[in-house]
Amino acid sequence: VVVGRPSLKEQLVERTFGVWLDRGFEGASVNDLVVAAGVPKGSFYNHFSSKETFAVAHVQRYVQGLGLDELSTAEGPALDVIRQHFTRQLLARRAADLEPGCLLGTFSTGVSAAYPDLLAAVRDGFAQWISALAQVISRAQDRGEIAGDLDSEDIAAALVDGLQGALARARITGESRPFEVFLSTTMAALCGQR
Amino acid sequence: VVVGRPSLKEQLVERTFGVWLDRGFEGASVNDLVVAAGVPKGSFYNHFSSKETFAVAHVQRYVQGLGLDELSTAEGPALDVIRQHFTRQLLARRAADLEPGCLLGTFSTGVSAAYPDLLAAVRDGFAQWISALAQVISRAQDRGEIAGDLDSEDIAAALVDGLQGALARARITGESRPFEVFLSTTMAALCGQR
Repeated sequence: VVVGRPSLKEQLVERTFGVWLDRGFEGASVNDLVVAAGVPKGSFYNHFSSKETFAVAHVQRYVQGLGLDELSTAEGPALDVIRQHFTRQLLARRAADLEPGCLLGTFSTGVSAAYPDLLAAVRDGFAQWISALAQVISRAQDRGEIAGDLDSEDIAAALVDGLQGALARARITGESRPFEVFLSTTMAALCGQR
Repeated sequence: VVVGRPSLKEQLVERTFGVWLDRGFEGASVNDLVVAAGVPKGSFYNHFSSKETFAVAHVQRYVQGLGLDELSTAEGPALDVIRQHFTRQLLARRAADLEPGCLLGTFSTGVSAAYPDLLAAVRDGFAQWISALAQVISRAQDRGEIAGDLDSEDIAAALVDGLQGALARARITGESRPFEVFLSTTMAALCGQR
């Protein structure tokens, strides 16, 4: 039985998340990335013209993997939907034996203006995430589940920003407590459920 | 009149903030740092044994510059004190013609475990910041200025985390709106003033 070999392009994206998180965009070399992915360096350049091109593709795949369509159309109490959405991100990373972290957050510091395509992809990813969350929040405000005195886009942006800070502190402290405080404190306060 | 020349050590710390923010710890080379500071590379190694040693010194100076003693002993309404504290950080950077950003946030992603001293300095800086904020919040809770249903340390941690995410998005979008949303939404919600 001949099975198709896994696409090297897939393999590169799937196995390099930890390298980006560990060293950041500037610190991770193409060599670091191909070694982690277990692919020959030549095949990297068959698929991607530069490290930035690869990072852009990885960010786009990462955003697709956030489950934003499911989030914005999910049924059920909004607080549960949002909490599960955030928790799933962390659990998925733990299950894959990866340290906590977000590719968007990692690429939002320490990437210089010399990489405009990557910065644009990160901006776009954040915008999509915030928009999907804002839809859930807005509907929950209409139903009276979340207080309506704050703008749904602002709440969504504040949630995403708070999560980024929490994941960064979770990473450097090696503790999940910052993420738990994000759920119990930031999210509870922003969604008016305290 | 002979005036003492500014310490090269001071000069290095004062003029390299933007390089760290732009390229991150891993992306900024010692060469980038000495060029930005306008000091000879040899004098860098007279003062610091490695890039990590210098980054640790910079983080410690940065934390001293946050004004945490003034914060924890400030008189006046707590919300004003906290808002001014956060705003001053951003204004100080703008006045110095620096892009928005926090050295602790920048060094909390993309710095690998190969730099334990730097990670420890960043953890320590966050702990000091959260502790100072928690003191202000706790006193304000005693006075009834801030609702007492959330733990003061958790509120402080959530504020610092939210600020980090907002500064990162302010940086990559080139807009101050994320910081304004942090003040009007995250801070208002966490401090029960919505």
